[in-house]
Amino acid sequence: MASGGEHHEEEEEYYGDAATIGALRPLYAGYAWADVASLGPESSGHAVRVRGAAQEVRAVGRRVAFLVLRQGGATVQCVVAGGGAGGDGGMARFAAGLSRESVVDVAGAVSLPREPVRGTTQQLVEIKVEKLHCVSRAVPALPIGVDDAARSEEDVARAKAAGEQVVHVGQDKRLDYRVIDLRTAANQAIFRIQCEVENVFRQVLLSEGFVGIHTPKLIGGSSEGGAAVFKLDYNGQPACLAQSPQLHKQMAVCGGFGRVFEVGPVFRAEDSNTHRHLCEFVGLDVEMALRDHYTEVCDVVDKLFVAMFDHLNDKCAKELEAIQRQYPFEPLKYLRTTLRMDYDEGIRMLQEAGVHVDPMGDLNTEAEKKLGDLVRDRYGTEFYMLCRYPSAVRPFYTMPCPEDPRYSCSFDVFVRGEEIISGAQRVHVPELLAAQAAARGIDVATIATYLDAFRYGAPPHGGFGVGLERVVMLFCGLGNIRKTSLFPRDPRRLAP
Amino acid sequence: MASGGEHHEEEEEYYGDAATIGALRPLYAGYAWADVASLGPESSGHAVRVRGAAQEVRAVGRRVAFLVLRQGGATVQCVVAGGGAGGDGGMARFAAGLSRESVVDVAGAVSLPREPVRGTTQQLVEIKVEKLHCVSRAVPALPIGVDDAARSEEDVARAKAAGEQVVHVGQDKRLDYRVIDLRTAANQAIFRIQCEVENVFRQVLLSEGFVGIHTPKLIGGSSEGGAAVFKLDYNGQPACLAQSPQLHKQMAVCGGFGRVFEVGPVFRAEDSNTHRHLCEFVGLDVEMALRDHYTEVCDVVDKLFVAMFDHLNDKCAKELEAIQRQYPFEPLKYLRTTLRMDYDEGIRMLQEAGVHVDPMGDLNTEAEKKLGDLVRDRYGTEFYMLCRYPSAVRPFYTMPCPEDPRYSCSFDVFVRGEEIISGAQRVHVPELLAAQAAARGIDVATIATYLDAFRYGAPPHGGFGVGLERVVMLFCGLGNIRKTSLFPRDPRRLAP
Repeated sequence: MASGGEHHEEEEEYYGDAATIGALRPLYAGYAWADVASLGPESSGHAVRVRGAAQEVRAVGRRVAFLVLRQGGATVQCVVAGGGAGGDGGMARFAAGLSRESVVDVAGAVSLPREPVRGTTQQLVEIKVEKLHCVSRAVPALPIGVDDAARSEEDVARAKAAGEQVVHVGQDKRLDYRVIDLRTAANQAIFRIQCEVENVFRQVLLSEGFVGIHTPKLIGGSSEGGAAVFKLDYNGQPACLAQSPQLHKQMAVCGGFGRVFEVGPVFRAEDSNTHRHLCEFVGLDVEMALRDHYTEVCDVVDKLFVAMFDHLNDKCAKELEAIQRQYPFEPLKYLRTTLRMDYDEGIRMLQEAGVHVDPMGDLNTEAEKKLGDLVRDRYGTEFYMLCRYPSAVRPFYTMPCPEDPRYSCSFDVFVRGEEIISGAQRVHVPELLAAQAAARGIDVATIATYLDAFRYGAPPHGGFGVGLERVVMLFCGLGNIRKTSLFPRDPRRLAP
Repeated sequence: MASGGEHHEEEEEYYGDAATIGALRPLYAGYAWADVASLGPESSGHAVRVRGAAQEVRAVGRRVAFLVLRQGGATVQCVVAGGGAGGDGGMARFAAGLSRESVVDVAGAVSLPREPVRGTTQQLVEIKVEKLHCVSRAVPALPIGVDDAARSEEDVARAKAAGEQVVHVGQDKRLDYRVIDLRTAANQAIFRIQCEVENVFRQVLLSEGFVGIHTPKLIGGSSEGGAAVFKLDYNGQPACLAQSPQLHKQMAVCGGFGRVFEVGPVFRAEDSNTHRHLCEFVGLDVEMALRDHYTEVCDVVDKLFVAMFDHLNDKCAKELEAIQRQYPFEPLKYLRTTLRMDYDEGIRMLQEAGVHVDPMGDLNTEAEKKLGDLVRDRYGTEFYMLCRYPSAVRPFYTMPCPEDPRYSCSFDVFVRGEEIISGAQRVHVPELLAAQAAARGIDVATIATYLDAFRYGAPPHGGFGVGLERVVMLFCGLGNIRKTSLFPRDPRRLAP
């Protein structure tokens, strides 16, 4: 009994299940907390403590086990051999019995393996485990495996061609178990890149004198659009979710803030099951007072996105590589000064290429794609602006060109042949706004609040909006917007 | 006819209504764009062009007019005397006819007035107007005046005592015409400060290894809480608006992101007409993996908020002064290292002061206020943390203290005696979570998704949430949260 008790205590000191994290503290006193990503050959000999997910567990005989520990996108091999607990192999057997994805604490010496480790991001160092405790047990049968979710289509095809059995996890199942799916190296990278896109967006705009604002998402009535809005009851009043911060960001400019931006959710109840539509996405919105011309908005877009693309290429090389490994893509081609073309010129290029397009109509997705190809081939860029759209294809609040009202002070921006940004000067003259609404058959009474915003002195202004998920999707050529939304919402998906 | 036409052209060149902003460009060719705020005695003699709102218009005889031009929170006096148009006083009469708040372009020489100008932020310089065009006419009878909205309660009281007639604009009316109300110096400052609070929040967390995320606001079912949620129909499925990003930020941590933050709207359908509740507010949320103890979350709060308060005091002195002028307040007292007290200790202080409180119950608003006074008097701080709350008064997902489960690994943070932050370690063990839910009478089936998130390996974690509007309100002692929301939403207000 006494010796059994001692044995148990010894086990607990070296390995076992942790009752609480606090309980482990005294046991790990001699080890310094370390991050997997920051280990390197210079750490050799250091006594470290690392907490991570047991991505892979492999027993070699009864006394040795290998454990691949993962933190974010970084992995390291941990060697469990003998160990402190009398060398009876108890710790190795404990390690071998860990279910994958369990969270474990490992303490030991960083050491240099004889040969580079394969299959981990840390190839030049490993950890010789002296203590090992499980902090959170994963269920033994995971609904999806992280390695299966991390497999590229190419790998799956190659394995199938070689007659190997590999599990291919479809996108829906991955999204059902997003909490596991997010652990793949590609997903870890995608959402770090998304965060950087937002950081650059904010930093560049702040340095240009913009103020960050938050406009309400709960809107009275049933919004301008009507059809594609989510409706709800607001303490007995009819309300809906904002389809864009359009009116309120304009009001902020008219309220004296001059230049504003917003990062916030945008809600669209459209029943569009496409690769590029979500029912909820993160809008990056800009609105600014203009001095002489709407192209001042284009100048901001230019500066902002060139800075963003540069930053991603310069500072996020590791993340881009991680995405590349699962989803290969060509780096985005863009110019130091963004190409601007008039809509007319785009129409001409398409017509010369034999594409039938209406010069005063809108471009369909196919024509946009084709124009993207033509522009890339002629100008060497996959990022460009198309300016001066026909007024007929833009919203009623778009300012017509003073020299020819059939055209408007508006632009779209394209990445890899897909529209990503829509921008324009807005009509700030209430009378013209009312006339343009009426000409479209909009009942002016329904937009009274909107009109009123411009009656108390309104600076000429314009702006643009872009979806955060689309920026990341198109920069990384990911092909489906669900890959760049943390917990996507589409017409069929409302969970998790 | 010919001379009349010439006269008309001359007028247009020097003053008049601008047809478009582009049309003004050639007329103002010799003048450099300038911002009101950046003018100074060193600008004297410069030929500048400024666009701003006509805050005040005053005619002196038929040939001279004074115009106070406002941009954001900055104002400058413009002197219209004679001018380019033959000196017949036409421009002065045009100026005198401008409605307040109209947006105008002014070109002229910066000059040094003989005496400092009173009532403008630029007191040492004025502009001798050479050209003047109106870009946007405000309606002549504004529903509220910017100067009336800018008046402090003290000024109103003083004027009334002196028997003067002054207009006092109530808060509801100000909010009804928010686009005008936002133009006051105090409001210009409040929302610039709000932007800085968010900037510091992001910068400090990014430097501490946090990743910014966006979680969905559309949630399946009708949420955990039940009562205070906004419900809606999502393509035929029942849905609601997120009352907090709690579950999803925890899932992001379990999904391998380790430390995450979010800035986004939070929706509460509560019918609370108080000075501190909104139906929609901006949540600043943090969730992080823990190493040894939940107080690691308190460490982040400490670092974050001391940095934030320092930043506001150091970098936003002008804005704080502008707020002070309309809403006087005492600067917030806070320590270099934030005071932490156990809940028990708080209870003891209240009991010693003769306040009757239940040691295992929650503090009501009054007791919190009283404790804030006691702490300020004893420790010289109006910003402190109260830790280790009784488990009974915290949500079911709060981790109990390992040494005494009657208490929990949780804390609240107070500013000027009002709760501003609520934080805790979360239960990451599904069995314990289910047991704690059941013990509160929660049907475990209704939280299945929540429980499942922790079955695939979950790092111990904790976090906190705080409302952006409350931070600004309490730092600036503003007394009503509607003052710090750009377009507030309360149980009665859904517009503009």
